[in-house]
This record gives sequence, structure tokens and C-alpha cells, in this order.
Amino acid sequence: MGVDPGSRATGYGCIEGARKVPGRAYRLIECGVVRPRGTDLPARLVDIHAAALELIDRLEPTCVAIESAFHGKNARTAMVLGHARGVLVLAAALRDLPIHEYAPREVKKRVVGTGGASKAQVGFMVKHHLRLGETPRPADAADGCAIALCHLLGGAFR
Amino acid sequence: MGVDPGSRATGYGCIEGARKVPGRAYRLIECGVVRPRGTDLPARLVDIHAAALELIDRLEPTCVAIESAFHGKNARTAMVLGHARGVLVLAAALRDLPIHEYAPREVKKRVVGTGGASKAQVGFMVKHHLRLGETPRPADAADGCAIALCHLLGGAFR
Repeated sequence: MGVDPGSRATGYGCIEGARKVPGRAYRLIECGVVRPRGTDLPARLVDIHAAALELIDRLEPTCVAIESAFHGKNARTAMVLGHARGVLVLAAALRDLPIHEYAPREVKKRVVGTGGASKAQVGFMVKHHLRLGETPRPADAADGCAIALCHLLGGAFR
Repeated sequence: MGVDPGSRATGYGCIEGARKVPGRAYRLIECGVVRPRGTDLPARLVDIHAAALELIDRLEPTCVAIESAFHGKNARTAMVLGHARGVLVLAAALRDLPIHEYAPREVKKRVVGTGGASKAQVGFMVKHHLRLGETPRPADAADGCAIALCHLLGGAFR
């Protein structure tokens, strides 16, 4: 399961790797976006954490791939994102799932072929790799899939 | 309960307010430092979260005061601190405790009288307000007490 954390919207994509589906590379199990309803940060963190536990318990991923701490943004943005990321990582760790981190550039590089790929290119390649009729929407859901694909394309089939 | 979050050490101080102890301003219930044993971030977050739930369930604070997101540090530091802060805020929110945030300068201003107070001055005033024989150690524990005192000195006795 790939996760693209955010305090307002967290995208996820659960993908089955090649070893489980001979003859077919990757299969999309489910993707979507978690949008916390809480109006303040504590309530949003509770929502994000509960949603992550629900997804893990229902989809039973074998590991979680998450976009690593980004760089270049300001400390305040990073702090807020860190809160959301913290409760997501906690959910995976509480379920004893290995957590793999990938930098945004690494995800684009592996999924599209270039670290500077656009959102649209990422969406197009997610559609291609998963043999979907259309690009997963919204973009956050496609990003969640891209992070999961990044992990699988790196030769990891755990 | 005041909390000074950190990924390596989280200080806390649980203080009883004036309304509960007539004739005596504030009483220290317990203070200390949570040092997560985990070697990687996910394991540390599990440790911090579990320790926070244990403290809340054992000490039964009526609210949690926490140092607010700091400014001026770099995005990477803020992100890591945000993770620790996220699982602490989550613990308080899961127990339905109100969470109050105070900026570092605000804590120093209320507890010492000046926003630019040193660590030593904060420790000294914590000792004074709580009528202790000596300053709580380590400094993180004193900081946890200072944050709780900041909340109480602001006229909040919830």
C-alpha cells in the first residue's frame, strides 16, 4: 500500500505485486483519498489515524510505502505535514508492517522514468502500469498508487 | 499536563491547579522524560504514543498543554518533530482531552516574566512556582512543567 500523506487529503493505493498474479504485472486492489472531517488538527489526526488502521485491517497490505519527508518547503508546512505523517507511520507500525520511504523524485523516476515528471505524467503511467481504463482520480489517489508502484518496480515484492 | 515534544526526548509535567489545592498554588504530581527506545522512527513513534497514553491513563490530567510548532528551524527538523508531536496530540485527542498550544516565548513570558528567558531561569522559576527543593531534572522535565504552569498561570484551571 502506497501512501501520500497530507493534513487535508491523504492519497492511498493498494496494489498486488507480480508474484501474486502470474502473467499480469500489477493489479490495483483499491485506491482513494482520506479526507479528515475534523475541524481542528487533533480531530483531523484522529480521523487520519483511524482511516489508516481501517484500510490496513481491511486491505491487509504486507507493507507500506510512504513518500519521504520533502525538502525545500518551509518549517511550518513541514511541521503540519509531519503530524499527519506521524499518525500514518504509527498506524503501520502498530500493525507491525514494514515501512518504506521514497522521495518524490524517486517515485517519479521509477514510475515515469524521469524525476521531474508532471502530475499528469504520473497519472498516465499509473494507468499504464495498472492497465486501467482511466487515470485514478483525484490526483492524490494516483499519487498513492505511484508510491506503491515505486516500491514494486524497485524489485520489492514483499 | 504539559508536554515538550521531541523525537529523542519528550518532557512532561503534570501539575495540579490552585482550585484543587486551597492555600497552595500549584502542586507537582509527576514530571519526567519519555525517551523512546526504538532505533528507527516508526518504533520511536510507537514508544512515544504508548508512553503518552500510559501517562494520561495513570495521571488522569484534565487537559494537555503542548509547546506549539516552533518557527525558524529548518524544514527537516520541523518534519521530524512534527511526527513526534502528531502522535502525542493523537494520544490526547483519543482520550478526549482538550489540547492547548503555547509558543515557547509565551511559556517563558508567563513562567519567568520575559520571553527571552534562559533554560536555567525557566528551571529556577518552575522550582519556585512549585515550591520544590530543587529544579526538576533533566531540563526537558522542567520544560514540561513550565508548559503546564504557563497554562495555569494564564488563568486556566480546567
